[in-house]
Amino acid sequence: MPTATSTPIPTTMRALFKHHAGPELKFDAARPVPVPGARDVLIKVKKAGICGTDRHIWEWDAWAASRIPVGIVTGHEFVGHIVQLGSAVTRYSVGQRVSAEGHISPGVGYNARTGSAHIAEGMQILGVDRDGCFAEFVCIPEDNVWPVDPRIPDKVAAVLDPLGNAVHTVMEAGVSAKTVLITGVGIIGLMAVTVAKAAGASRIFVTDVDPRRLALPQKLGATEACNVYVPPPPAEPTGGTSQQTGLQTGNTPGWITEIRKATRGDGPDVLLEMSGHPQAMNDGFVALRPGGTAALLGIPPMPFTFDLTNHIIFKGAKVFGINGRKMFETWYQMESLLLSGRLELDEIITHELPLEKFAEGFGHMRSGAGIKIVLDVG
Amino acid sequence: MPTATSTPIPTTMRALFKHHAGPELKFDAARPVPVPGARDVLIKVKKAGICGTDRHIWEWDAWAASRIPVGIVTGHEFVGHIVQLGSAVTRYSVGQRVSAEGHISPGVGYNARTGSAHIAEGMQILGVDRDGCFAEFVCIPEDNVWPVDPRIPDKVAAVLDPLGNAVHTVMEAGVSAKTVLITGVGIIGLMAVTVAKAAGASRIFVTDVDPRRLALPQKLGATEACNVYVPPPPAEPTGGTSQQTGLQTGNTPGWITEIRKATRGDGPDVLLEMSGHPQAMNDGFVALRPGGTAALLGIPPMPFTFDLTNHIIFKGAKVFGINGRKMFETWYQMESLLLSGRLELDEIITHELPLEKFAEGFGHMRSGAGIKIVLDVG
Amino acid sequence: MPTATSTPIPTTMRALFKHHAGPELKFDAARPVPVPGARDVLIKVKKAGICGTDRHIWEWDAWAASRIPVGIVTGHEFVGHIVQLGSAVTRYSVGQRVSAEGHISPGVGYNARTGSAHIAEGMQILGVDRDGCFAEFVCIPEDNVWPVDPRIPDKVAAVLDPLGNAVHTVMEAGVSAKTVLITGVGIIGLMAVTVAKAAGASRIFVTDVDPRRLALPQKLGATEACNVYVPPPPAEPTGGTSQQTGLQTGNTPGWITEIRKATRGDGPDVLLEMSGHPQAMNDGFVALRPGGTAALLGIPPMPFTFDLTNHIIFKGAKVFGINGRKMFETWYQMESLLLSGRLELDEIITHELPLEKFAEGFGHMRSGAGIKIVLDVG
Amino acid sequence: MPTATSTPIPTTMRALFKHHAGPELKFDAARPVPVPGARDVLIKVKKAGICGTDRHIWEWDAWAASRIPVGIVTGHEFVGHIVQLGSAVTRYSVGQRVSAEGHISPGVGYNARTGSAHIAEGMQILGVDRDGCFAEFVCIPEDNVWPVDPRIPDKVAAVLDPLGNAVHTVMEAGVSAKTVLITGVGIIGLMAVTVAKAAGASRIFVTDVDPRRLALPQKLGATEACNVYVPPPPAEPTGGTSQQTGLQTGNTPGWITEIRKATRGDGPDVLLEMSGHPQAMNDGFVALRPGGTAALLGIPPMPFTFDLTNHIIFKGAKVFGINGRKMFETWYQMESLLLSGRLELDEIITHELPLEKFAEGFGHMRSGAGIKIVLDVG
Repeated sequence: MPTATSTPIPTTMRALFKHHAGPELKFDAARPVPVPGARDVLIKVKKAGICGTDRHIWEWDAWAASRIPVGIVTGHEFVGHIVQLGSAVTRYSVGQRVSAEGHISPGVGYNARTGSAHIAEGMQILGVDRDGCFAEFVCIPEDNVWPVDPRIPDKVAAVLDPLGNAVHTVMEAGVSAKTVLITGVGIIGLMAVTVAKAAGASRIFVTDVDPRRLALPQKLGATEACNVYVPPPPAEPTGGTSQQTGLQTGNTPGWITEIRKATRGDGPDVLLEMSGHPQAMNDGFVALRPGGTAALLGIPPMPFTFDLTNHIIFKGAKVFGINGRKMFETWYQMESLLLSGRLELDEIITHELPLEKFAEGFGHMRSGAGIKIVLDVG
Repeated sequence: MPTATSTPIPTTMRALFKHHAGPELKFDAARPVPVPGARDVLIKVKKAGICGTDRHIWEWDAWAASRIPVGIVTGHEFVGHIVQLGSAVTRYSVGQRVSAEGHISPGVGYNARTGSAHIAEGMQILGVDRDGCFAEFVCIPEDNVWPVDPRIPDKVAAVLDPLGNAVHTVMEAGVSAKTVLITGVGIIGLMAVTVAKAAGASRIFVTDVDPRRLALPQKLGATEACNVYVPPPPAEPTGGTSQQTGLQTGNTPGWITEIRKATRGDGPDVLLEMSGHPQAMNDGFVALRPGGTAALLGIPPMPFTFDLTNHIIFKGAKVFGINGRKMFETWYQMESLLLSGRLELDEIITHELPLEKFAEGFGHMRSGAGIKIVLDVG
Repeated sequence: MPTATSTPIPTTMRALFKHHAGPELKFDAARPVPVPGARDVLIKVKKAGICGTDRHIWEWDAWAASRIPVGIVTGHEFVGHIVQLGSAVTRYSVGQRVSAEGHISPGVGYNARTGSAHIAEGMQILGVDRDGCFAEFVCIPEDNVWPVDPRIPDKVAAVLDPLGNAVHTVMEAGVSAKTVLITGVGIIGLMAVTVAKAAGASRIFVTDVDPRRLALPQKLGATEACNVYVPPPPAEPTGGTSQQTGLQTGNTPGWITEIRKATRGDGPDVLLEMSGHPQAMNDGFVALRPGGTAALLGIPPMPFTFDLTNHIIFKGAKVFGINGRKMFETWYQMESLLLSGRLELDEIITHELPLEKFAEGFGHMRSGAGIKIVLDVG
Repeated sequence: MPTATSTPIPTTMRALFKHHAGPELKFDAARPVPVPGARDVLIKVKKAGICGTDRHIWEWDAWAASRIPVGIVTGHEFVGHIVQLGSAVTRYSVGQRVSAEGHISPGVGYNARTGSAHIAEGMQILGVDRDGCFAEFVCIPEDNVWPVDPRIPDKVAAVLDPLGNAVHTVMEAGVSAKTVLITGVGIIGLMAVTVAKAAGASRIFVTDVDPRRLALPQKLGATEACNVYVPPPPAEPTGGTSQQTGLQTGNTPGWITEIRKATRGDGPDVLLEMSGHPQAMNDGFVALRPGGTAALLGIPPMPFTFDLTNHIIFKGAKVFGINGRKMFETWYQMESLLLSGRLELDEIITHELPLEKFAEGFGHMRSGAGIKIVLDVG
């Protein structure tokens, strides 16, 4: 039986849920409030961020259809206050302002017990495998609680999950005193710009194909932002394009030549791949200096023809696959960066909307008019 | 003018050279002895190893045709004695028994000045870009000299270059107290077995498709050696094979299931890829445990369809591209391993032949009847 | 309320406890069996090791008097079977053979949440801060359980705690392909010899002042074991001894000169300090090669005059302070090393005695006649 | 014979040299210009910095008396242009603007060949072991040349040697996203503040006992600067002071309590020790969080009583001894930081004076009225 709390917990709550095996989410004004298990805490959600994953769930793409149980409350980025403790909870108390890691550890096995529960066999994700935070109340295991420093404002505390993706990528690559190329400046790519700058990158070069996104990186500390859009090849491909791969593989693009000039002729020390696009990945590895480091967060939707020989082996590259956040090394790094006062997130969190206006929020995200959308829940 | 030496240097020497833009090498009984530049030493070669690269040059494949200047003396693995010093040489003396790093540094630029001259812009390779060691005498820069500890026998000292490839791969991955999968046991793959064992791998699993090679790994310390040969798919490919890639991608192969069982269900901690074969690389990454480390030395002959998403990104893998040897970190690690007395190389160096019997040596190598062939030069 | 179990749990048990604020322990034939809390498991102890810490508690030295609550059941190294689960336990089941990490994490704070609970503020130690395992039953938190692989025998499973100290020291230093000096071969120093060998140390040099201990290292894989005993200086100290420090600081001892000769003139790459003796620490740092790594586990009983300038700063040394075990990176490394079949522990575990013969066991340990003593509990 | 140059090289030059075995330096208006050896370049010096080492040489302290050959031209920090090449020099050309690493490598041995020539056996230092740069011309080996990026101004290029000490300390510790304590803000300590900030330290705390120095750190990016001066204890030491050590070891100083409050209660992640003062070192280790990293550059003048048990072993600290600069990893890191535009050195380089006013420069340095003094040489 959960610990009694100072304020009574209602029995129903407002929530967004996946109402059918198809697009969109539905608002429920009277969803039952979850009851915390022995090791869980119950949190009253204040703000919640919309993630790219939530967009996949909204759009009900192949991944979502294969993974998401119909009926689930979605959402996994949030800040709120603890209102109730499970019977075996000892580390936290009612009233604490908290966020949470959304990867729920199985608690056993190598990765779960050595700080990498995010890649552990049997790991579950909040709002994907079990009810999430697009709701007034959410239950999470005590092990997942992250107490939020009072100096961090709510709207930032609501998006620690994706910010943590950026921090994980930047810190795994190691950018201190290094030149950095970021390919792709979606939400996490933009966060990576300000994180890399705060973490000590000496100069940051950015590429994308969306002019709306390329206006922002220099405000966040990038040295240069290149539009690398290339019109699709004509119907009869010529030498500059590989028929096998669809990639432009001929002459080195001009922007790579420019970046090399700016980096002793070598290319950037670090590649942070944030697009998942085959052309961006190919070009990023071409640009990377021999012996450089690549951290890959962007997810190619399917396997593609990749030149391991030249991109990794002959180049002597170091490549790190990234997803989630180290539990909890990444969270402490993120807190340290936030408390430095050097992260600039105001231009990335473009919209704050009431929970009920969720459709508008998803609309801004899908159109590209907004970047990070935060829902005011309670 | 080079330093005078105790014994007179002849003006001509026996040597093997690439006599035309086509297959094979030719013996020259009276090649002029090279004259060391100011910073070079002249070495009288005692023994020299035949490398896989030498085989490419012998066979005059596309790579060789594009890179090798006709007329060059080939060979880059050897041991011998210094017989003459260039005018500005100060670190070594006539009479020292030495081998040498075959990658000749440009001396300027980031990689050249930080221990990675093997991937430096402008780097040259002995016996590839300039006259090599299949000859009675060879010139190398003082910076490339490696004095050989007297406890290391000549036939081993003659093959430090490929042994160094194995050491580089093993040490970059880090195998101490880890389980290791080695895909491909050609010359360097076999060396990697004994190196990984000596460097502290707890258990070593090996795969190959050549039964002759699979007899040896367990003698060298491997826990298990699997023949992973799969007959080619029938003319009408079925579900188990990807038409796009030619790879077998259906059910997890039984040998992977077995290795997982032996490794807490996770898979090996480390993958050392020594084959360059797309199927082996794909399967190796499938087998690798989440969060594991892969070091890639085998060279795929062309780009192929690779599943970066599942093999690297979702898996949180660390991947290191390997070629050459760190200059000279790898050499010191190799010396330390050799002096441990734990490396077993006798079964890998299968043949020692006089220089004049080079055609027989190349024949043993090409037929697979031999593994590492050493030529007695002087 | 704990989960029901297949066999009834008795209400009393045999146990050793600290019966007064003074030397020795006392046997209690009818100690109440502890009741597991919601997140604890109750374990029936099979075998338990006597640690150096237990000897301090036995002898009731200043540290013990300041730390140990009178009345406590001591002991923290053991193997047994789970017989009961707390109400919130989900990861383990009754009947599993387990050992446990003895450092109990507070669960909050940086070190507790990033794999270093052993140095976390608020951490408690089994058998030191709360009832331990010199008893038929012991309670530990679920988070501390270590399921023991069936291939590991009971007597080894009973001493994973000190073996883990050795593994932690060796792995933090990094010994793969390196030369190693181990100063002090008490229990953990001896374990460090076999661990370092299995983890890939190329050659291992050992020092101690007790001839009984110096017979063993070479059986465990050491290259050489030196008796470094130096008779105390005469009443009137001469130039070879520092009056300020009591250390012998004159000429470099002959054994250091010998080790340097064996290591390219440089000294060993790695120092594993296992004695805590100022002279051994001083000499170990003198011997260490410039740029080498030292891992310090031995505990000097009080501050002493240490030459940071020459031993660490000018030498460019890397120094790691070690205690406990990383939770749980070290445990997985240990398991991997044990399953390699390369650890030789039979000569280190010299005695197995029934619990009731505990006084004899402590006697063997204190006299030096035994090394590691294991008590058969149930 | 050196390569001919475009402009004639004079036969004599202005220079400062150590004229006797006692204090001060002397100006010589007609010192012979050195002649480069085969592998040397001759550089016309433009600006040279005065180092703390030069001050020791000026003051002729015990270290200087034991190390410095009378008659030598001192100085080792400079920028200038190459005017002549030794006969075997191939990497650089006359006219290049260059600085140089002052540690001259023996070229053989482990450290010399693996990027740590600064701690190699047989290493020599410019201006200490052979004629230095307080002169119109200086000879250095080609291996030591550092071509200076044109974006770096002369006065900064003249002090890359000490800036490199700061970079080496900061980068070895690793400060990205970490909290940092710098104890001692002399020249290199102040440089470390701006370097740590640019390299990604999240917050920087600084201590010193000189109020003149404590005004500057916050301008360079420090979060807080504490004056930790404690009046000497009375003649009859009381409980708060250790008679054995002279250190204040009683209650934790208030400034440490404050830093802990600002760092989750743990203490800073990183200690950069820049004072060499026993009290600062002791207090710095007390402040350091458990599991933290210390990089030690300041040089205690003699061994002192140090609490290895609590400061390093129980704390699980990582400690790195620092001197010189990695050759040449540190130099590339420094260049990258300088080109980031984030290093603030203008307030640290307080004086630029003509060579002939050297006595005034040393005076400013010794009085503390100046920080870094640069001499205009040519």
